[in-house]
Amino acid sequence: MKPVQTKTSEEVKKELRQYRYSKTIGFVPTMGYLHNGHLSLVEQCKKENDVTVVSIFVNPKQFGPGEDFNIYPRDMARDLKLLEELEVDIVFSPSLVEIYPAGYSTYVEVEKLGDVLCGNSRPGHFRGVATIVLKLFNIVEPTRAYFGQKDAQQAVVIKKMVNDLNLDVVIRIMPIVRDPDGLALSSRNAYLSREERAAALCMPGALQKVRAKILDGLRDVSVVKDMLQREMNKEPLINVDYLEVVSLDGLETLEEIDMHNTLVATAIWVGKTRLIDNFILGEI
Amino acid sequence: MKPVQTKTSEEVKKELRQYRYSKTIGFVPTMGYLHNGHLSLVEQCKKENDVTVVSIFVNPKQFGPGEDFNIYPRDMARDLKLLEELEVDIVFSPSLVEIYPAGYSTYVEVEKLGDVLCGNSRPGHFRGVATIVLKLFNIVEPTRAYFGQKDAQQAVVIKKMVNDLNLDVVIRIMPIVRDPDGLALSSRNAYLSREERAAALCMPGALQKVRAKILDGLRDVSVVKDMLQREMNKEPLINVDYLEVVSLDGLETLEEIDMHNTLVATAIWVGKTRLIDNFILGEI
Repeated sequence: MKPVQTKTSEEVKKELRQYRYSKTIGFVPTMGYLHNGHLSLVEQCKKENDVTVVSIFVNPKQFGPGEDFNIYPRDMARDLKLLEELEVDIVFSPSLVEIYPAGYSTYVEVEKLGDVLCGNSRPGHFRGVATIVLKLFNIVEPTRAYFGQKDAQQAVVIKKMVNDLNLDVVIRIMPIVRDPDGLALSSRNAYLSREERAAALCMPGALQKVRAKILDGLRDVSVVKDMLQREMNKEPLINVDYLEVVSLDGLETLEEIDMHNTLVATAIWVGKTRLIDNFILGEI
Repeated sequence: MKPVQTKTSEEVKKELRQYRYSKTIGFVPTMGYLHNGHLSLVEQCKKENDVTVVSIFVNPKQFGPGEDFNIYPRDMARDLKLLEELEVDIVFSPSLVEIYPAGYSTYVEVEKLGDVLCGNSRPGHFRGVATIVLKLFNIVEPTRAYFGQKDAQQAVVIKKMVNDLNLDVVIRIMPIVRDPDGLALSSRNAYLSREERAAALCMPGALQKVRAKILDGLRDVSVVKDMLQREMNKEPLINVDYLEVVSLDGLETLEEIDMHNTLVATAIWVGKTRLIDNFILGEI
């Protein structure tokens, strides 16, 4: 059966009214151009909830000036077909003006957590993320919401927001899904030429290498970072944006690996494309 | 019957569970030290809802450095007695650490509306207000919430936040309650000496005078402001913080009075006490 497609918050709220008091509602917010990473979230959501809602909205507020909002890949027809195959119940695909009407002016800021790593390279990004996620949570009022570990900092920021703002939603973080060559799935992979894609593989390669060393007993963060940097330097087509080793709960710089509370996160530029990847020790 | 007194968000949520799907829940957030202004909100709330929740929490995040957080008047025993007399169902009086645990870092910002008038004199004030109100709304999940028109800018900011963040709560703004001498009720009136209180009356006096002139046909805002300033100048014991004539919906400077969309707002210092007052043409 085709998912019920809703385009306004009134429509999706009305559609959800029948389930509100008797069913669990699972929610997967996305920016569309769905890949198997997204679909793994949808599958998990379906397993754990009576009703599954997927939103598709490319959120301008999480793109900085000069970033790729305008060219971000979109393919609603294909997305809807994929969601139909997975038997999603409700799709919410609002317009820009539905979400941000003229004069919109309210923003959510998660201090500190939103300022480091990607927040440092993309000022305002997590403010945009926190704001849209809060709005979508208020519209859908889900029992559980699903995010990918690929965006590890986003997951940490959203969990913090949910906790700080007393929101009643369980945040579920699902593992990174990779292509067979090791590259983490991302809608932005569509930007890569064949050469760029080959070059980008140095990022998961480097992460895998240091992860193995850590599992073998390496604990010194400066050695870990040197090793990551050296691996990245082997590939002339990429530029490192950052490589950081931080605590998973507070995103604070570590000197020593904590096997239960560490995020090793990297971001690189391959030509005009910015890609991120990470691994964690512990749980978000 | 004594109200059920709750001190943690878990407690108040648990208490509300029995009503959640069958009753309307009315909510009056306060900072305590209740006066008849607060009580008028409670009475209206009781009229319009099945269950009435009143919160008492002096919110440090809406006080600036050097402001009166530490000396803000508190009298929980008296407040509880007043709420018992009004047959309030549930009182929520959380501790500081319950609302802002260590490491708290999420804030809501209503841009523009929160930066003018009182926001100009009290930077960060409305960020603190929006944040606590959102948290309390998320905890109580009320059908309707009640605020006083005395804090007109607060009412405008909260209505904007509710709208922007897709919150499902009806905001009800109730008229200013005054003492027989004309002074708007405020917990901060407790700070005033007899002389200061007499001096403070020039504020409602000035507002009443220009309001009469406007009802008689005066429309030129510069004349209105001059008149207010002149009235205020008559009282040597007060200092004007601001006197503004703005649109009620966007808090934007007006040149001409709009009989359906105007806020005339004033703030004065009387000794170390800051007091506000206003009248509106139209509806918040």
